[in-house]
Amino acid sequence: MKLLRVGEPGAETPIVREEDGATFTLVGLTDDIDGPFLASGGVDRVRAALAEGSLPAVDTTGLRIGAPVARPGKIVCIGLNYRDHAEETGAAIPARPVVFMKDPSTVVGPYDQVLIPRGSVKTDWEVELAVVIGREARYLADREAAQDCIAGYTISNDVSEREFQLEFSAQWDLGKSCETFNPLGPWLVPAAEVGDPQALGLRLAVNGEPRQDGNTKNMIFDVAHVVWYLSQYMVLNPGDVINTGTPAGVALGLPGTPYLRDGDAVELSVDGLGTQRQTFRNA
Amino acid sequence: MKLLRVGEPGAETPIVREEDGATFTLVGLTDDIDGPFLASGGVDRVRAALAEGSLPAVDTTGLRIGAPVARPGKIVCIGLNYRDHAEETGAAIPARPVVFMKDPSTVVGPYDQVLIPRGSVKTDWEVELAVVIGREARYLADREAAQDCIAGYTISNDVSEREFQLEFSAQWDLGKSCETFNPLGPWLVPAAEVGDPQALGLRLAVNGEPRQDGNTKNMIFDVAHVVWYLSQYMVLNPGDVINTGTPAGVALGLPGTPYLRDGDAVELSVDGLGTQRQTFRNA
Repeated sequence: MKLLRVGEPGAETPIVREEDGATFTLVGLTDDIDGPFLASGGVDRVRAALAEGSLPAVDTTGLRIGAPVARPGKIVCIGLNYRDHAEETGAAIPARPVVFMKDPSTVVGPYDQVLIPRGSVKTDWEVELAVVIGREARYLADREAAQDCIAGYTISNDVSEREFQLEFSAQWDLGKSCETFNPLGPWLVPAAEVGDPQALGLRLAVNGEPRQDGNTKNMIFDVAHVVWYLSQYMVLNPGDVINTGTPAGVALGLPGTPYLRDGDAVELSVDGLGTQRQTFRNA
Repeated sequence: MKLLRVGEPGAETPIVREEDGATFTLVGLTDDIDGPFLASGGVDRVRAALAEGSLPAVDTTGLRIGAPVARPGKIVCIGLNYRDHAEETGAAIPARPVVFMKDPSTVVGPYDQVLIPRGSVKTDWEVELAVVIGREARYLADREAAQDCIAGYTISNDVSEREFQLEFSAQWDLGKSCETFNPLGPWLVPAAEVGDPQALGLRLAVNGEPRQDGNTKNMIFDVAHVVWYLSQYMVLNPGDVINTGTPAGVALGLPGTPYLRDGDAVELSVDGLGTQRQTFRNA
């Protein structure tokens, strides 16, 4: 099953989608898919309600899909977490996870328009496996405890402006936090249904041209380690999102650095997590 | 007048305090002091209600004071923004604001306990002028437009773990985002009542020993410039907080690097914005 949020921005309603594509409303079971829902066993309640057949079917055809988690409290990002991407950017393989943050108000739906900031000439893409936290993670003992804190997975486009990120100061957050810079979705897939998070193919194409084709098996620090590691230094709260890094193939690392331009269409997919598609437009 | 939030963590109620120290409840006028309150002219409504004498007096003696803004959507920090602090850390004077972020769930009240993270040996203090945003700031035209987006000011202790910040990777956010690392308050003072934000003394003492004694006139990038600058790259939303940087005198820059230890008491003040006091305890 897949959890999603459907409707206009700020007015999405929660939905569950079965493997055959049938969709059911969660209104009545929860107001939204958010931290309190995930922390209170919401995913299990949805599974039980689906099994009972007690959820009303709804037709979501043609409706906008929003981000699958409402109002993440923070977005933590892991930089240079694929060996091939670290190499293409000229960076050393990091000895510890490189941790930075992104303004959580950058989150938009998986098919929403993304804005190229005014004055930008280096807007870039990054397909990533996103982890959604389901339980408070604080000084976790080990990898197993970390896995227990993961509600599920979705896709992030960790959109980045390389001049703002790399040339304006040594701190990256400015180039990661521009308006609309974090398309998220389409679905939150519960961890139990994703299987091994370190065996997922990730792909991204720009105007139909393949640009990224990686696999989470090539992460330097895997998902369980990242969640455990972060919990030693900060508290991860239900509904928080972790962007776990991107494989090679970003514009920054390609011949001719083909950064995004007004009208470009970017399509992303991760095995089992669906597809995103955004058109980029000048702000 | 000063706006504050009083009560147990997560259950604070909004209060206004007059110059003579008299306190009145805002329950009935607003549920909380937060982004929607600030964006909807809440400060003016409080001022009018005070003038009318329509607010019920309340005795807040002995009650905990929380952070003066509920649930900031993000905390943006400006690094190395005082010439003397940049020099003490050995950094160059930055050509542009150095922008990084802090987990907004680190916010605690101005007198709450602060936790020294497990394994930390370099927990440090930073007294800062904090800006609270009152109106959406997006591609602002000039300094005047930036000033119009500021609801008011308060004090931040931008607590920092220097090993996590500076030695674990080149990105600083990890050492800024530990649990309880952003005491905020005691009051939100409306911008009109602060006067010139570039003429405020800032002081910090540890166990009674003066450590920082600066003035906002020594900022490299002043408040109006910082808000204008950030708005060119990200959207600032009502309720967001900007930590505008710290003057010299942090442990990192002092002889013997006297980092904080279990039981240390830190007292901070900024002219016109009140005083904070925290005891630091091992997590």
